Formats: sequence, C-alpha cells, structure tokens
Amino acid sequence: MSDVEVEAPAPAGVSMEELRLAARNHGMPLEALRYPVTPAGLHYLLIHYDIPEVDPVTWRLEVGGAVRRPLSLSLEDLMARPAVTTPVTLECAGNGRALLEPRPISQPWVMEAVGTAEWTGTPLAALLDEAGLEDGAVEVLFSGLDRGVEGEMEQRYERGLPLDDAIRPEVLLAHGMNGQPLLPQHGFPLRLVVPGWYGMASVKWLARVTVLDRPFDGYQNSHSYRMRMQEEESGTPVSRIQPRSLMVPPGIPEFLTRARQVGAGPCDLRGRAWSGSGPVIRVEVSADGGESWSDADVEEPASPFAWQGWSFRWDATPGRHVLCCRATDAGGRTQPLEPEWNVGGYANNAVQRVQVTVPADE
Amino acid sequence: MSDVEVEAPAPAGVSMEELRLAARNHGMPLEALRYPVTPAGLHYLLIHYDIPEVDPVTWRLEVGGAVRRPLSLSLEDLMARPAVTTPVTLECAGNGRALLEPRPISQPWVMEAVGTAEWTGTPLAALLDEAGLEDGAVEVLFSGLDRGVEGEMEQRYERGLPLDDAIRPEVLLAHGMNGQPLLPQHGFPLRLVVPGWYGMASVKWLARVTVLDRPFDGYQNSHSYRMRMQEEESGTPVSRIQPRSLMVPPGIPEFLTRARQVGAGPCDLRGRAWSGSGPVIRVEVSADGGESWSDADVEEPASPFAWQGWSFRWDATPGRHVLCCRATDAGGRTQPLEPEWNVGGYANNAVQRVQVTVPADE
Repeated sequence: MSDVEVEAPAPAGVSMEELRLAARNHGMPLEALRYPVTPAGLHYLLIHYDIPEVDPVTWRLEVGGAVRRPLSLSLEDLMARPAVTTPVTLECAGNGRALLEPRPISQPWVMEAVGTAEWTGTPLAALLDEAGLEDGAVEVLFSGLDRGVEGEMEQRYERGLPLDDAIRPEVLLAHGMNGQPLLPQHGFPLRLVVPGWYGMASVKWLARVTVLDRPFDGYQNSHSYRMRMQEEESGTPVSRIQPRSLMVPPGIPEFLTRARQVGAGPCDLRGRAWSGSGPVIRVEVSADGGESWSDADVEEPASPFAWQGWSFRWDATPGRHVLCCRATDAGGRTQPLEPEWNVGGYANNAVQRVQVTVPADE
Repeated sequence: MSDVEVEAPAPAGVSMEELRLAARNHGMPLEALRYPVTPAGLHYLLIHYDIPEVDPVTWRLEVGGAVRRPLSLSLEDLMARPAVTTPVTLECAGNGRALLEPRPISQPWVMEAVGTAEWTGTPLAALLDEAGLEDGAVEVLFSGLDRGVEGEMEQRYERGLPLDDAIRPEVLLAHGMNGQPLLPQHGFPLRLVVPGWYGMASVKWLARVTVLDRPFDGYQNSHSYRMRMQEEESGTPVSRIQPRSLMVPPGIPEFLTRARQVGAGPCDLRGRAWSGSGPVIRVEVSADGGESWSDADVEEPASPFAWQGWSFRWDATPGRHVLCCRATDAGGRTQPLEPEWNVGGYANNAVQRVQVTVPADE
C-alpha cells in the first residue's frame, strides 16, 4: 500500500525539529477543497513564533514613519471605518517544500498549505492617504506582535511591502474572517491581507505600520523569503503566488499511506485552482501521470483573488493510475511537472500526483 | 540551538507517510494552553479517513439492534431534545507517540494532541432508555460516515463502548461546539462525546447507534487501540485518559528548533492538567529535568471532565534549564519520567520536558 512512495521517494527522514513544526502548524486536509470558503479551523496556518496574547481593549495600531499625520487607532476606530468583505486565497510560500530534494529544512509542507477565507477589513490605501505620505516614501513596513529568534536574531515578525503594492485597492487591514472576529491564530485583533501574494506578506497581530523612505532590510525580507540557488546569493524576493491546482483526492484513503481506492466507472474529479497574477484560464487533467492531458471545466472566480473550482469526469478503469492536474493563468504561467529546487524551498508549484487503484469488477 | 534534541534524541527519521498524516491532522500549539476553552481551529484533530460531506437535511441517526423500539431521528429531532453544555478535555490516544523508541508508525504526535471544547448535546442514556434496551444488551456500537481502508479492510470508522460506560450521564450526542454548530472536521452534524476517554471513543459523523448483545469485534476495538507489547498479543483496550500536565512554553521560541529563551527573574509558569479518572489533585514542577520537584497551584476543574489550570512562579537564573511538570490524580495515578513503550504507541503520558536558556544579565 505504499504506492505513493513509488512516485514520490522519501528524501532523508524528516527530523524531530521539522516534525515539531509540522505538529503545530496546520495544513488544509485536501478534501476541504470541496468548500469554496474554507471553514474555520481548516485554513492553513503557519506561525513563525508563538500565537501572541492580545488584549483588544488596550491594543492600538500605530501608523507612523514617513507620514505627515501619524495615527493611533483602536480596534473600534478601525471597525468604524468603511469595510469590504472579499474571498481571498492564501497559500504559504513554503507549500510543496517537503517534495524537494534535498529537502530544505523548515516547516515541511507537502501541498496542503492553502485556504480561502472571506476577509472583512478596511482598505489600507485610504488610511495611508489620511496619514499623508511624505515625498520619498517607497515602502511600508508591517510589524506584528509575535516575537521569537530566527537567524540567530531576536525579532518581531515584520515585513516590508513596496509602496505601489501596499496602496493597491485590494490590500486590507482585516478584522474579520468568515463573518466572525479573527481567531487568535489568524491574527486577532487585526492583520494585513495582501491578496495575490504568498502568505508571508499578510502580517498577523499587526501593531505598527511604518512608512519607509528606503526598502526594509530586516530578516524576513533580506534573508528569508528569497528565491536563490545558493545560500550566499541575495536572490530575488518571493512575492506573488505561482499558479497551482489541486484536486480532492477521489475515492477512499488507506489510513496510513493515504493511497486511494476508487470504484470503476465514471468518477467526477473536482478541485480548485489559483494564481496570484490573474485568473486561471485553463485546468488540465491527466490520468496517466502527465503523459496526456484533457481540459477540465473551470469556474469563474468569486473574486479576482479567490481560487476557482474545476471539474472533470474521469472514466475510472481497473488498474493503477496517477491522476494529475495543471493550471495555467491568463499570463500564460503554468505548473511544472517536476519540482524546481531553491534554497528556501519556496513556490514549489509542481503538479499534484495522486495515485489511485481501481479494483477489477467483482 | 538544537538543545531539544539533546534531551529527546530523534529516532529514525520520520517517513513521508507519517509526514502526510502530520500535515493533515492538527495539533494544538502549546501556547493555546492559555485558553480554558480551546478556540475553534486550535483543538487537536485526528481523522482516520477523510472528512465526509454530510447533508444535514437528509441525514438521520438510526438507533437499532437489541432495542424494543428502533428510532430514526433527524438533526431537528435531536436538537429539540434536552441539551446540556459542558467543557470536556479530549486527547488523542496516540499523543506522545513520536517520542517513543522505536517509534510506532502512525500519526506522529509529539505532545500536542489535546483540546477542550464546550460541547452541547443530548445525553445518550435517555435516548437508549426510550429505545428500550433488550435483555442481554452489553455494548453499544457507534458507526460514523467516514470510510477508508485500514488493516487491509475497507471499513467505516466505528467503535463499540461497553453498555455501563455508554449509559453514564456525561456521555453526549453532541451537535454543538463552543456555542456553534459542529465544524465539518469535528463531526458535523452529530458526534459522540465520551468524557474521560481518549478521543477514539468519541465517534464523529455519527450515523448509527446499534445496541449489541456481545462485544464488538471490529477493527478499531479488537485490533487497533489496544495496549500490548507484541503485535500477536490481544492486549487490553485503550480506554480512559491517563493523567497528564503540559505547560505553556515560557519566553520566546527559536523558529526552527522551538528552543526557548527566557529573561532572568521571576517567570510565571502556567499550564493545564487532566486525567480521565478523576480530578488532578497535584501538579509538581521541576526546573532541573526531574531531579527535584515543587508543588504548583492547581485550580478546581470547570467540570469533572475538563482540564485544570495550574501555575508556578519560577525564578529564572542565567543558564540552561529543563522544565518539567507532573500531574497526579485523585486515584494516585501519575506521570512517568520516561516514556513507556507499547506496539500502538498509545497513552504515552511521560512528563513534558521544555529546554530553556536564560541569558546572563547584560
């Protein structure tokens, strides 16, 4: 029953350190792809340090730096501002890392670090406008309340975002998720949501927004979250989500191996596809491990930054099959058949491979 | 920064199969011990097969077997019955498995497979009373809607519970969790909650309750969830939760290793302790890896089956320390210092060991 490993040979065993991370961070079980909006507790979760304890009564958001009118806002102030609610798909930049060889040592995601929530918040651009950007502003730094040690430095989690990206209309200061206040693990009381970008940009437990007149050179921008082939390279920043499609694994699983068993006959494959750079215009399905492909039906997105449903009727014939799906976005970006390695193990959007066995008719 | 491994040497590397399980099942990040009731999405989650899709409109609970009046109940019927709401701590029987050597191969929990929810439901005993138990009834079988392959057998997840345990007043057919309908992953629309027992007894996505005139000999009772030292033994059933205490890891973590850094001076350690066989009457804390122990303050439980808060003021002095906690229940059961191995890797309640470094004053 270890068919999966035939296709995805295990690299050197996962270490206790990686396992400790896997035990505290949460993937989305792939059958949850059936929900257009991921229910509470099934959305992926990657937390660098610890979930901080925040008192929403004394908490404030400070807006400062290269602005003419620094602001200090309570949660009440923020919730009184104009709000929008929109479904956004977030994916961890490290999704797919555990399928790379050699495996970069960090949170060992297989391919389940994704989710779509209906985020409610107030647009950042209007707030920055009220604060009044000074000439020379080029970037905005978002600082969270979560503290830890990383790269041998004690730090808060914080990320800089180029100004042009920060003032896009879809960027939200979010205080709600799926119609409820943010859960503690998703950034209560306030987080940034940067639609289209990998999750590292959407800083949680937000405490401070600082407008900068030069690019931020802190750990999470200048060292971590960079695409590079060698540790010494400076590389390029990880930014927008690469196209990906995933399927709900069909049939039933074996408990340990997750190998799938599917009954013979018509089988409706379904899943979701997304890209951070525009809509997915094509999803293809292969039932022979990527040798031949057929087009699936693809739904329109519920918002410009939400995943799109797709479906494909497959005629399951007795035997073993490797099911794959592949998304292509409006810009022509698509998914590689094989993983593309980099030092940090980021943006591995290689096609999903699902081994299924169809028993012979009885 | 790999202090943790000094104390808990990594056994043979975790396999891709184990990692796939760790990626879809969810632990409770230990800082969430700070919440008396675990927020949605932070409660542990162990799902043998897939989360099933259930239509609550057509769903029914069938009550049959050795009863005089079989019942068929809609969700509305069940919600119209007398309901109680009570906090219950659930823990996976496999919690602690990954710290055993050799490591039994299954879901590789470290020690985070726990959570406490306020469950709302209707007592099972009254329902069985209405159905009318026939003479000779000895066990009750609970069958879920989740299907998969395990032990080379296609099966639904189902478990038998001895009648005397099933009719205890605290056993609930639960339709609510923390004041909301059950989330899909926690058994929507209805699950069993067996307070005091490890989680395997609390069957999710409940479809059928069957009263039996002999013990159930299906996979999850007769093969899985048994304490034994060799595969061939029949062993004894896993049942009530062994005493355990856990602490919120103090200070701040290193991202990868989770090694903790704590400032010098008074440090309030806090955590939770529980036992499935009665209240915890003592929690002890050690700051020297279990050489010497001091009593912590222990809170009264919010219900007979909910964990109890504890706290201890530790004077953090510069250097390295191994913090431990140990619970003892009213029956005198306590936690061993070292893990006690068994084939399935169940009920490993060895004391938690948290390595902390206190930097010298600057």
